[in-house]
Amino acid sequence: MANKPSIPKGTRDFGPDEMAKRNYIFDTIKRVYALYGFQQIETPSMETLQTLMGKYGEEGDKLLFKILNSGDYLKAVSDEELKERNTLKMQTKLCEKGLRYDLTVPFARYVVMHRDELQLPFKRYQIQPVWRADRPQKGRYREFYQCDADVVGSDSLLNEVELMQIIDTVFTEFGIRVQIKINNRKILTGIAEVIGEKDKIVDITVAIDKLDKIGLDNVNEELRNNGISEEAIEKLQPIIKLEGTNEEKLDVIAEVLKESETGLKGVEETRFILETLKGSGLNNEIQLDLTLARGLNYYTGAIFEVKALDVQIGSITGGGRYDNLTGIFGMPGISGVGISFGADRIYDVLNTLDLYPKESVQGTQLLFINFGEKETAYCLPIVAAARRAGIRTEMFPDKAKMKKQMSYANAKNIGFVALAGETEMQEGKITLKNMSTGEQELVTPKEIINRF
Amino acid sequence: MANKPSIPKGTRDFGPDEMAKRNYIFDTIKRVYALYGFQQIETPSMETLQTLMGKYGEEGDKLLFKILNSGDYLKAVSDEELKERNTLKMQTKLCEKGLRYDLTVPFARYVVMHRDELQLPFKRYQIQPVWRADRPQKGRYREFYQCDADVVGSDSLLNEVELMQIIDTVFTEFGIRVQIKINNRKILTGIAEVIGEKDKIVDITVAIDKLDKIGLDNVNEELRNNGISEEAIEKLQPIIKLEGTNEEKLDVIAEVLKESETGLKGVEETRFILETLKGSGLNNEIQLDLTLARGLNYYTGAIFEVKALDVQIGSITGGGRYDNLTGIFGMPGISGVGISFGADRIYDVLNTLDLYPKESVQGTQLLFINFGEKETAYCLPIVAAARRAGIRTEMFPDKAKMKKQMSYANAKNIGFVALAGETEMQEGKITLKNMSTGEQELVTPKEIINRF
Repeated sequence: MANKPSIPKGTRDFGPDEMAKRNYIFDTIKRVYALYGFQQIETPSMETLQTLMGKYGEEGDKLLFKILNSGDYLKAVSDEELKERNTLKMQTKLCEKGLRYDLTVPFARYVVMHRDELQLPFKRYQIQPVWRADRPQKGRYREFYQCDADVVGSDSLLNEVELMQIIDTVFTEFGIRVQIKINNRKILTGIAEVIGEKDKIVDITVAIDKLDKIGLDNVNEELRNNGISEEAIEKLQPIIKLEGTNEEKLDVIAEVLKESETGLKGVEETRFILETLKGSGLNNEIQLDLTLARGLNYYTGAIFEVKALDVQIGSITGGGRYDNLTGIFGMPGISGVGISFGADRIYDVLNTLDLYPKESVQGTQLLFINFGEKETAYCLPIVAAARRAGIRTEMFPDKAKMKKQMSYANAKNIGFVALAGETEMQEGKITLKNMSTGEQELVTPKEIINRF
Repeated sequence: MANKPSIPKGTRDFGPDEMAKRNYIFDTIKRVYALYGFQQIETPSMETLQTLMGKYGEEGDKLLFKILNSGDYLKAVSDEELKERNTLKMQTKLCEKGLRYDLTVPFARYVVMHRDELQLPFKRYQIQPVWRADRPQKGRYREFYQCDADVVGSDSLLNEVELMQIIDTVFTEFGIRVQIKINNRKILTGIAEVIGEKDKIVDITVAIDKLDKIGLDNVNEELRNNGISEEAIEKLQPIIKLEGTNEEKLDVIAEVLKESETGLKGVEETRFILETLKGSGLNNEIQLDLTLARGLNYYTGAIFEVKALDVQIGSITGGGRYDNLTGIFGMPGISGVGISFGADRIYDVLNTLDLYPKESVQGTQLLFINFGEKETAYCLPIVAAARRAGIRTEMFPDKAKMKKQMSYANAKNIGFVALAGETEMQEGKITLKNMSTGEQELVTPKEIINRF
């Protein structure tokens, strides 16, 4: 009768401690986004399948969680179709809604639907869960939060500059040392143009990326195995061996790409972003990395990625410039640039390095011990005064054994415990116990409040 | 090809202004919950249908959004069953997960699953969306937020007292004048016992509730029509005509219920709650109201409800004491008491009365006008300094027409605009324009920061 409860695989409960830490992460990111003039929006968890399907490739369509229509969901399905059991074909008749898969497509849909209300450039941030019917594994969940910020309706590279500053500020606040990597899709396109291998750009970046591990000869061998001509490999040598400061690298690249208008545009964009950032005093290093090739089909200009320096973990933030975000919904010509913080990985990094500020995860600050009805009546006005003063305060509700109440205080990591028995009541005072030092003091109610 | 986008009926997009207001509501409630020692948890949006089904009645089962299984969702359905088209029976074979319908059942499930980690009493709050496949109508949505706080594992009435204080504090902070209504399920049970009409308690409270509108004779007539005996109606007269202060009412009720142990227990509980609250100086009136009969099958002790005094709208907060929350999941004997703020209605009330504090909905505070590359280079360090000082600042990214940039500032309700042209740059200053007064001043970068 009573079933043993469980939660769907790939999903998580967040208890009080985890929530305090997650709130610290989200609140920090929100504060910095707001500092740069980004405004929050939220979109519904459910979108029409018409909005979602076909936006994430065939694999993505499969990974969408689809919601069964209410009422007679078989209405639109013929007997023939039922017999056929073509589940792929039938699903759009059984379901017209799905759970959002990311925040980008709902944002594009939002911009198009609200185009008349929006003042461009529109700087929005959005922190909401997304759902994917992926095979769950370590660090990969079926429900997880994304924390995106995007500027749409402005081609200015100042937006790229600001997003880099946001990344730098957020990780500085977290105390996580990072390396910010930057690349530009136009440079990669330029390389492919110059060596006459337009379709091989991914193979090329993958091979170049292995230089440190396998050495130059093996990189060249791999390029050869990928069918890249000797002439092209020859031209690629300065790119493969690229070294030095960002400026030195850009000079080499500009020389290699001198025949490619697109490539030179990419160099110029990257130069502007890096030059402008120089004056702003970033705390973290920003490095040009040509092997950075995330979302190649999607991004059209700058591409960013952030790696933690002190923890072995994948990219913890990424983003880039894209054109035509809203084209799929019939509103062409809107360019945008955005970033996305990986909250789950940042959570892991903060845990590993134990970087949470104590105040950020502190719940109740003061617990009043319950000795019975008379003592409680004495304490309640003091409890109320403490709360009015902004002190997070509890009165233990039951007259339980002292040991139980103290272990409650310990379990909740409460800093101070207040005790009032016969003596304290007669003197109009309270015994205040510091739970970390064990120290006890007899104080007036006013003194308690001043203590915090 | 390009489809005109829309969102599922009964769902909403929240734009920047709405989000700022909603954040103000949620942040206020969260802060007060934390002040009373409640800790936040979050549970997954999806629960197994096993967890959800049968918890909300037959109607509730229908209103659950069910998620189609991934892969071959027809696997478990036989040809016979497909032919039968019994959608009700088939749905649990097509779907094993659903979206949460409220926060109470997931919380019960949470408590049972995490029983070994929890220190009782467990004071948790939870602010998350819930989904119901209800027919959408004005003020009723298919996705909406609930803001619940519950204490489980303590029978103490101090919990009821604190929840009333939380309600009072939250609405005081909002500036919404409210009446808090309180009742007790045990009093209602007592009344039913005393008049020998155990099954008619709902009819009785409905009839009594009409006293002001239809008068005593008609109330008695309605009771008669509901099959209540003359003797019972006679006994009910003092209850129907109940008047005066809460104490006077409780005295009358105690007299009527003197034969009912349960009823007297209810009177005693209510007396304790009201007496204890007297010392704590509530800002809003709390009134005993026997016609308050929400969730009768669910609640076992105190019942609360909050009405706004200055806006015609249904209950904006409610709650009560329940026993055996976790019994359905095989963990009996856990009593709890909780409240739930109706965020959407509170939003409507705050809008109607225009009570949002200006700071709470203020986004960007300062906008730097973009006059071109040279001027931007001059401004950027000042922009950075303003942000370091915590001022929410933007630099307009494009060198657009002045009019466009000013209308951007107006649309985003930005308080101050900073301008730097040839003159300002020569003097190392900035012209600061107050957007509400139109006043302009020539100031140093440092002075700008001091201005906020």
